Amino acid sequence: MRSGTSGGSKRDGTLKGRLREWASMDRVAVIGASMTQFGQRDAWVRELLAEAGEDCLADAGVAADELDHLYVSNMASGEFEGQTGVPNALAHDLGALGAYTQRVDQTSASGGAGVYAAWQSVASGASNLTMLVGGEKMTHRSTAEATDVIASLTHPAEYKHGVTLPSFAGMTARHYLETYDAPRESLADVAVKNHRNGVDNPHAQFRTEVDRETVLESPVVADPLRLYDFCPITDGSAALLLCPESVASEYTDDYSVVSGIGGATDTHVVHERDDPTVMGGVVDSSETAYEMSGRGPDDVDVAELHDMFTILEVLQLEDLGFFEKGEGWHAAREGVTARDGDLPINTSGGLKSKGHPLGASGVAQVYEVHRQVTDDAGDRQVDADVGLACNVGGFGNCVTTTIVEGAK
Amino acid sequence: MRSGTSGGSKRDGTLKGRLREWASMDRVAVIGASMTQFGQRDAWVRELLAEAGEDCLADAGVAADELDHLYVSNMASGEFEGQTGVPNALAHDLGALGAYTQRVDQTSASGGAGVYAAWQSVASGASNLTMLVGGEKMTHRSTAEATDVIASLTHPAEYKHGVTLPSFAGMTARHYLETYDAPRESLADVAVKNHRNGVDNPHAQFRTEVDRETVLESPVVADPLRLYDFCPITDGSAALLLCPESVASEYTDDYSVVSGIGGATDTHVVHERDDPTVMGGVVDSSETAYEMSGRGPDDVDVAELHDMFTILEVLQLEDLGFFEKGEGWHAAREGVTARDGDLPINTSGGLKSKGHPLGASGVAQVYEVHRQVTDDAGDRQVDADVGLACNVGGFGNCVTTTIVEGAK
Repeated sequence: MRSGTSGGSKRDGTLKGRLREWASMDRVAVIGASMTQFGQRDAWVRELLAEAGEDCLADAGVAADELDHLYVSNMASGEFEGQTGVPNALAHDLGALGAYTQRVDQTSASGGAGVYAAWQSVASGASNLTMLVGGEKMTHRSTAEATDVIASLTHPAEYKHGVTLPSFAGMTARHYLETYDAPRESLADVAVKNHRNGVDNPHAQFRTEVDRETVLESPVVADPLRLYDFCPITDGSAALLLCPESVASEYTDDYSVVSGIGGATDTHVVHERDDPTVMGGVVDSSETAYEMSGRGPDDVDVAELHDMFTILEVLQLEDLGFFEKGEGWHAAREGVTARDGDLPINTSGGLKSKGHPLGASGVAQVYEVHRQVTDDAGDRQVDADVGLACNVGGFGNCVTTTIVEGAK
Repeated sequence: MRSGTSGGSKRDGTLKGRLREWASMDRVAVIGASMTQFGQRDAWVRELLAEAGEDCLADAGVAADELDHLYVSNMASGEFEGQTGVPNALAHDLGALGAYTQRVDQTSASGGAGVYAAWQSVASGASNLTMLVGGEKMTHRSTAEATDVIASLTHPAEYKHGVTLPSFAGMTARHYLETYDAPRESLADVAVKNHRNGVDNPHAQFRTEVDRETVLESPVVADPLRLYDFCPITDGSAALLLCPESVASEYTDDYSVVSGIGGATDTHVVHERDDPTVMGGVVDSSETAYEMSGRGPDDVDVAELHDMFTILEVLQLEDLGFFEKGEGWHAAREGVTARDGDLPINTSGGLKSKGHPLGASGVAQVYEVHRQVTDDAGDRQVDADVGLACNVGGFGNCVTTTIVEGAK
């Protein structure tokens, strides 16, 4: 396991000594969680954020005016809607007057970055009660317009020459399949699995099964990847409520604990990476999260991975240490990552079928693992004490990994 | 002192018990600081950020690859330049590969919010070495375009009817002058003082003195305020390097300590405030910062206030507890806040003459108080052990207050 680690890591581990101190610290608990319906929504981001925020407060039985800090994960409300200052607007809409607010942006990993920011606000002692609400409103823009906004996160040397994120995905997929002699069908199996999972998620954008042939015969987007290898453009929002573990039981018995969390970058220029099939940010962020939690890949029972493109789920399976390098493509194909497999991946349906509202996705990932480890995942429930969420910004440019455990 | 507090506060102080714990915690030190030339710069925000980042690392003698976290304060690189993902770009440009990166946006208080985020990253134990770089590139856009981007942070009910931030300033100034029977000239004296201070700041956008008549006879912008009551549109960047106080002396003897920091919102809809001359976010954020530091207004020796409009400096003087409500207008007029007065305010020249690159301003404020309390402010040096920086987003919609003390 974790064979990719030493090769992909960009960090020397200077934090390690300090990370161990966490074992004796008051950890950060998740006492409330929510997500809105994902899909094409007739609402602006501000309304979507308020919807998830109200549901999250209700989930924990907390009043808005109890909040110390209120964070908003959002990549581009200014570019998508011409509206900035959204955190203040949300404080207004929820009735959280006085709470400190801030927007967190880390492109498509804004949600995971928001989880990290909210965690830091509690772990630092700056806040006793922090709500994070992530959301994005995108479907009112054309796919070309939305892709253009997203592409502006990449290095100008790449995006000004027309290399968008789907282009990177196509090139990486081809390289991976050739390097590891993996069949093209193995990527289709990721889409089939995640669509299957999405059927049981009432909040998912797509709740229809697809078969391998449908994926393989869908229109080419970036050869060898086709339409069904890609997540959709989505509107939606999700929220989490965090407090110190020492007071969590005052709010609820059904809380979980963030036992480990970390973030890391990889090269901004994608083509500068030594091995394009290794996501260094995944390796490094998970090393920090594993170290903090005292857990390793073998301890993880369920995980939400950033399957913006099918190939990314395969790479993350390897770079998180679940599979040896070059072996991740077997996972969906052999049922290991199915809901009834040894390591269920993307029980929510993943970005692929649940949808990918940029600022919400990383929050919704933690929503799902929180529900799983607190035995509250309904039809999607698996047997899980330890869950992991991996949120990827850009094409692995910045990544956060969060480990969430049941408190019992 | 602090007579405005009870009337303006929106918070019930639930954090207080926890704030006291800070007294026994490892505090966060500032071991490096930098700012670029502010003004009209022939460089994109990415280049400005790299310039300040490199200078800050050099100031502390730290290599980029030692950084654990790298935060970027920036309001609107997407809207101003069509470029997102700037934190990753900065990590690339500095050679901080692997460091966790994130963008912090809290409109015109993005810089102060970045200081708070960077502080949390160290105080939480998530990072042993965090650099914050704040910057904005604005002057390539017309004043109307820039004002429009900024106005999009306000409530649609206000900005879609043409009420921009300068409009609020004009109305608030008129109300203040009438309510407290203050002479119009007292606001001009703020501009005169800050222009005088800017002359000695080599990084300031304007280094020319102005007299009271020049201010009073400049073109009307929002009656009674005139051109010289407003800060300019500016390009620039500033940076800070933070670590735990326990290891600060390994880097430098000239460090300062963030002894208190807090943030708070006021109503998003400005006209809903009970008293438009009280900035509730200033009251609440400073209460938190004072409580954490064990300091009060009387302990502060020097302060950087958010004088985006002259009237705002007067309001902050009152809401931070330096003057009774309705008395702040005497300060500049009577020389109390001059560089040789009892409480020097905006020794840097303030936003008024130094300039106001949105994401940089709150960082540059802390740069100035850090330089002052470490006896490294050159021609601007005053006698100061305790400094305070107040960064205001929107029209007081969100505010951060930071207290910085010399370590000696």
